[in-house]
Parts: sequence; structure tokens; C-alpha cells
Amino acid sequence: MRTILIIGAGRSASSLIQYLLNKSVSEELHLIIGDLSLDLAQKKTNNHPNATPIALDIFDENQRKNAIQKADIVISMLPAHLHIEVARDCIVYKKHLVTASYISDAMQELDEAAKANNLIFMNEIGLDPGIDHMSAMKVIDEIREQGGKMLLFESFCGGLVAPESDNNLWNYKFTWAPRNVVLAGQGGAAKFIQEGAYKYIPYTSLFRRTEFLEVEGYGKFEAYSNRDSLKYRSVYGLDDVLTLYRGTIRRVGFSKAWNMFVQLGMTDDSYIMENSENMSYRQFVNSFLPYHPTDSVEIKMRLILKIDQDDIMWDKLLELDLFNRNKKVGLKNATPAQILEKILTDSWTLEPDDKDMIVMYHKFGYVLNGEEKQIDSKMVCIGEDQTYTAMAKTVGLPVAMATLLILNGKITTSGVQLPIRKEVYEPILKELEEYGVVFHEQAMPYIGYNPDKVFS
Amino acid sequence: MRTILIIGAGRSASSLIQYLLNKSVSEELHLIIGDLSLDLAQKKTNNHPNATPIALDIFDENQRKNAIQKADIVISMLPAHLHIEVARDCIVYKKHLVTASYISDAMQELDEAAKANNLIFMNEIGLDPGIDHMSAMKVIDEIREQGGKMLLFESFCGGLVAPESDNNLWNYKFTWAPRNVVLAGQGGAAKFIQEGAYKYIPYTSLFRRTEFLEVEGYGKFEAYSNRDSLKYRSVYGLDDVLTLYRGTIRRVGFSKAWNMFVQLGMTDDSYIMENSENMSYRQFVNSFLPYHPTDSVEIKMRLILKIDQDDIMWDKLLELDLFNRNKKVGLKNATPAQILEKILTDSWTLEPDDKDMIVMYHKFGYVLNGEEKQIDSKMVCIGEDQTYTAMAKTVGLPVAMATLLILNGKITTSGVQLPIRKEVYEPILKELEEYGVVFHEQAMPYIGYNPDKVFS
Repeated sequence: MRTILIIGAGRSASSLIQYLLNKSVSEELHLIIGDLSLDLAQKKTNNHPNATPIALDIFDENQRKNAIQKADIVISMLPAHLHIEVARDCIVYKKHLVTASYISDAMQELDEAAKANNLIFMNEIGLDPGIDHMSAMKVIDEIREQGGKMLLFESFCGGLVAPESDNNLWNYKFTWAPRNVVLAGQGGAAKFIQEGAYKYIPYTSLFRRTEFLEVEGYGKFEAYSNRDSLKYRSVYGLDDVLTLYRGTIRRVGFSKAWNMFVQLGMTDDSYIMENSENMSYRQFVNSFLPYHPTDSVEIKMRLILKIDQDDIMWDKLLELDLFNRNKKVGLKNATPAQILEKILTDSWTLEPDDKDMIVMYHKFGYVLNGEEKQIDSKMVCIGEDQTYTAMAKTVGLPVAMATLLILNGKITTSGVQLPIRKEVYEPILKELEEYGVVFHEQAMPYIGYNPDKVFS
Repeated sequence: MRTILIIGAGRSASSLIQYLLNKSVSEELHLIIGDLSLDLAQKKTNNHPNATPIALDIFDENQRKNAIQKADIVISMLPAHLHIEVARDCIVYKKHLVTASYISDAMQELDEAAKANNLIFMNEIGLDPGIDHMSAMKVIDEIREQGGKMLLFESFCGGLVAPESDNNLWNYKFTWAPRNVVLAGQGGAAKFIQEGAYKYIPYTSLFRRTEFLEVEGYGKFEAYSNRDSLKYRSVYGLDDVLTLYRGTIRRVGFSKAWNMFVQLGMTDDSYIMENSENMSYRQFVNSFLPYHPTDSVEIKMRLILKIDQDDIMWDKLLELDLFNRNKKVGLKNATPAQILEKILTDSWTLEPDDKDMIVMYHKFGYVLNGEEKQIDSKMVCIGEDQTYTAMAKTVGLPVAMATLLILNGKITTSGVQLPIRKEVYEPILKELEEYGVVFHEQAMPYIGYNPDKVFS
């Protein structure tokens, strides 16, 4: 039996654990599932004979080291900033490690030690980051193998509500950490390249400079720019590419409406509002509007946001019950962002029967034998239910598959890795198709942003 | 002879040094003027028999301690974050200290030690902070002495160009650190109270929510909200006040135009732009606009900012030569804010004959014997020339006067102080009038923001 320690049994671990339990007999696996909550760990093991739930507090050094020593490989599903202690123990006890998180500087520093011990520390192998790397590198490698030269790479991903559960005016519900949705785009200007020109978008304009996308059978989407479009330029070998853009997918109209919150200052997480606990939703809104003794919050809001009476933006605000005098915020010492999150959670929480949806869209522009070409690669994944969500599947399955491939000696490159090598993406993308995570690649005419080759 | 050590002989020290030199015979003063640049210190002493210029590097501990030991009182005109080492030495060698800067936490920590040694550490005694505290506390104390209760306090200050030198469309030139002007309002939402309601304005809306002011003989001004309107609530004893607002004064129309830079992201100081050194002004602007192979930078700018062809906003941009293809930024690894500062400095630098202007405006609302009243207090100060600017006068003279009052035993309260006591503001405001810094106080009908006493 090979022992896999899984640290963290939260929502995103459901599909991961299910996959490994299903394989546990044929692959001779024993899972130790550790969580701060023993109850949660027990629920996820579901009395499976090949699984042992344990209470595990990673801040308890002895507990942590004991658990890691018993394993052949460790999966950390902890919040990103908590991986590092686990990773250091994995060096000490010579265990492989798999995470779905971005490689931090501290993690990167372990690269040499991991290589020296012939250990594989596979990171960024969830959805985004994860499936995005794999599905992009597959096409980029294919283009290069044919002798093509990349001109353009655009990559979009979004966690949304499935069409059958899409019943609000925002066409959006929270399918992962609401806090991250509220804070999205903050912390610095977005940076990308179009046709060789560096472009920058400040937070204040981020949600007004969207791109549009169409996915057959699913209709139109929009995307706002990620902060880090150039992050993988070198990793993907795209240093010479003319256009590089990464964005977050929403349904058309979301961003324009979200921008109202940005302009009012409701997404600010940097200060605490006076008397937040006893504030009504209406008072919260009024805090961002000029004082007037008689003008209503509604008319002040319309004026400042320039909302006509027949503008759908207004209905979107009403739908959130923002102007309610009786609903109290009920959060002590809360920031505007925390209060907005509370208000949105009232409206945007998935109903028991709701399903989520992941949409990923890549565009690859390239020149081959003097001819400009383009491939669009699209993937839509709908969740099964509230446990095996599209998010849990797309984050957890690649983690689980990579773990098994490492155990079985199919992934062999040691060090701090991310899934950009063929030995990783080829088997995982293939197996993901069995689970409904399928990319549809399509040849397109290359357009780019300068189709007439004007030199401006 | 009493020895005054002045550390820092820069622009804001001109009037301060001139004042003390003029008093040096009658008051038996000897000035030691220390600056990193001996040349600058020499220029400011101007061979006066009662002054000794010295080269002083405050990071050289021996030099610094030697100079401080020789003094009876120390004036630090260093940048705010550099006062603390000087202050600690002043404790060791038992010297009084005067600065025009905000009291930092580190400075405040010296309060007990200063009191134990019967030392006066007088801070915030320049213009803003400084004259604002004194002129406000004078009226507030008078209102209280009559038995009045404060309802409203609004305070506005701005460093502008004098009307006779006001010859650009922005009605603005740099009269102090341009960098601070470019970064103004960043770092958190503005917070204030109107009629008991807390109000918050995010940076993105700060320059669109201005207040208007009129100063007889000088016309109309506007003000955008400072971040820290509540900072002096307790210090001034205004904890119960209904309205508390502090703002920065500009000529009407400045803020609306400045907001264009904010919306485009040009005031961002958090990242470095690619290839900033060789970028043209036009390319700088284009970096914040969507890519298009043929549409001009001008038409993209008009569209994104919604500028009609007959809108004065457009002329304001043209006046800055923003669209010049040939002017290079010439700054290595520069942030957008640094580049914008460079571009603005081309247009907004004072000409040799230009004069600057300081405008300060306070509104005091109060109730006395059941009657609501208001006093408006206004001060305008025009600079003499480029050395004895209104800024240098209003910053430096209160520092100099306080120094002499401390030496002469007229200011006696020890500890880390700011000028809110009558023993400080009364003699200084009176003497400032001789130098043309005169507040005109005027009884007004109290209006506030809820004149009809509607309870909404």
C-alpha cells in the first residue's frame, strides 16, 4: 500500500478524495485525510476501508511531522500561505508534495533541496492555475513542434453559475471564496501587451475595459484583465509574443454593474467603517453618497452613477436589496469590502439544487510556413451538485491525477514544478476528458488587433 | 547670546532664517545653520555676523551630536521622517526642539522624556499643519469662552499660484513638492462627518466631490476632501461636532481635470513602466488607452474620457503637450506618477517672476444662547518672490516665532506639543499679522447642511 496524506478536507478536496478512494483498491492506496475538523475529515472518508481520517492542526509541529512521516506523498489543500511549513517537512522526511497553489517565493527557494533529494514538488496543478497551464502548453507545444511561431496568447477563465441555475440579473453567484471576488483586481494596475505595446489599466477603469468571448452553446461572455498577464511569459517561452492577455470571465454586463461598487468605494478593504454592526444596508450605501437632509439615497445614487430610470443597472441594485432600511449589516469593525460581501452573499449564494460552471477559453495566434493561423481552445464544465462542483472537480482532479502519476513513476522531473511539461499535461488532460473536462480546439482565421498591418 | 541650531537650509527655511537674523542683534541670537550642502547654508547666512554656516550630515552621529550640544534650541526643517534622531539627541542633551511636521508615533513616544526634562518639543507649527491649528483654536476658544457650543468645523487650505502669475488653463503651478501634488489623495478613502453622518469618498471619486468656496477679492475656489478630516477631532475638543471636514483648495475646474489623470491611471506610483526612459509623452498616454492600429491617441482619449470637442478639458490636456511624439520622458524605471510629475513640471514650474499664494478658509458653526451662528475665517498670503514665497513665509515664520517665544520663556508647556494653546497661538497670530498673514473673521448666518432641520 502507498500512503497519501491529504491535508485539508474542505470543499475543494471533495472530488480529489473521491477520485483517490475510487482508485484505492486497484492502485493500492491508503489515504490519511487530515483536517483541523476531525468531523469534516470523517465525512470525506465516508468509512472507506482504505482511508483514515485524523484531526490535524498544522500549527502543531509534532502532529504535522508525525503525519508527514507516515506518508509516501503529501497533498496540501491548505490556503496558499500555509503550504510552506508542510513543504519544509517534506524536504526533511523526503516526501513528494502536490499543491494547487501558485509557487510562492518561499516555495521556490526549496527547489534545490527538492532536486538534491530527488523529490517532486508539483504546484499550480488545480484549475487556474493548473488546467490553464496544461491546456495552453499542449497547444503551444504542438504549434512549435510543427515549426510554428507564436504571435498571440490570450487566456480567460471564470467560475460562474450554470445556465440552468442562472436566475439573477447579475448572471452570477458565488462559487468560490466571495472575499476574493469582492477584492478582485485590487492591488495594482493590470498589465498586458497588445501587438507589442504595453498596456496598463488602473483598478478604477478595470471593469470598463472588457473583452468579449463567445462559446458555442453557452452564449456570450466578457472578461476583465487580470493583473498578472505577463507572469507566465517566460515560463511558457513566449518572450517574443506580440499579444499576451489573461482575463477573468463573467457574463456580459456583470463588469459594468460591478464597476458601480468600485466607483462608490464599496470594495475598499483598507479601513473600518464607523458603527458597521448596527448600520442598515441603506445606511451603508448612504455612507458613500453626499449628505442631504431630504434627497433620498435612491436619487443621490442615480445622480452620482448617472443611472437612467429605465437602465438595467438600477434593477441590479434593487435586486440586491441595497436600499433596505431594516436589514442590518451585523458585522463588528467591518471594512466596506466585508460589508459588501455580506450583502452580496444574501443574493448570490447557491441554492441547494444550483450547479456551478467553469469556463476556460484560450486563443493561440501563430505563424506557420508564412501563414498566420489561430486556434481557439474552449472548455466548459458544469458541476454535478453542491459537493462535486465544477470547481471541486477542476481543482481537485488534476491534483489527484498528478499524485498518482508521481507515485507510479510517470512524472519524474524533480524540483519545484508547475505542470507545463508533456509528461504531466499529456496523461492528465487525457484522463480529465473521462470526467467531462474536455477542451474543444478549433482552427480560426488569425485576426489579432492589427489585421491590416498598419504601422502606426 | 542664545544659540539656535537650524538643521536644513532648503527653500522652506528662507523666511525662518531671515526672521531670526533680523532679530539676532536685539534678541542676542547666534544661528548655526547646518545643511548637507555647506554652500546652501552659506547662501542662507549671507555673511551675517550672528550666523555660522556648517556642513551637517545628520546621518553622521558625531557631527549631529556635536552640533546639537552647542545649541540652546534646535529647529529641524528636515523631511518629517528624519526628525526622530535629532529629537532623541535633544532629550539626551536637554535641548528644546521645533519642527513644522506632523507628530509621528516615534515623536509622540518622547513625550514623557521631554516632560521629565522640562523640554518643549513644539511640532506642527508651520502652515498646514501650523497656522491652521492656531487660527482654528483661536476662534474655537473664543466661541467656548462665550459659552457657545461647536456644531460645525470645516477647514480648507491650498498652495496656489498668485492671481498675477496665474496664466495657465489649470490655474495651478507647483509651489511645493510636485510629487506630493501628484500623489495627493492616495492611500485610502477620505473620511469626514456631515450633520452627524460619516461619509467616505474613494480616491476614484475624490476629485468629483468638491466643495466650493468664495474669498472676497480673489474669487471662487474649490476643495477636495483630505483623507484625515477626523484627525484633530479630539485634539480640538470637537468630539460632539456634527460636521467636520478638511479639504485642499484649488481653483475651480482643477479637480475635474485632474480626475482625468486619476481615471487613466497616470497617478499610480506602485509599478514601473516598461521602457519609461525612451517613451515619448504620446506613448505614455497611449499606454493607458486601448490598442488600435489606426485610431489616434487623441480620439481614443476623447472617447474614454468622454470629452466633447468644445470641452475645456481638452484644451487643458493640449496645454500640457501630452500628445507630443518627440518629447521623451527620459526617466529610467519610472512609475506613472513620476512620469506625470515630469510632464507637469514642464508646464507648471513657476517662472522667475511668478509669485505663489496661500489660501486658508475655516468655517465655524456653533450655537450660542439658543441661536445658531457661524464665523468664516479667511487668510490669503501672496509671496514676495521666489525666495520669500508665501509658502516659505507661512511655514517658516511660525517656526521662528515659536523658537523665540520658547527661548524667552513665553511658551512654557513642556512635552511633545502642537500649537493649540493660547500661550502659543495668541502671540504668534498677532505677530504674523505684521508679516501680512492676516485672518479676516466674519459673522455669517449658520446654514450647515440641514437648514430646515429635516429628520431623514
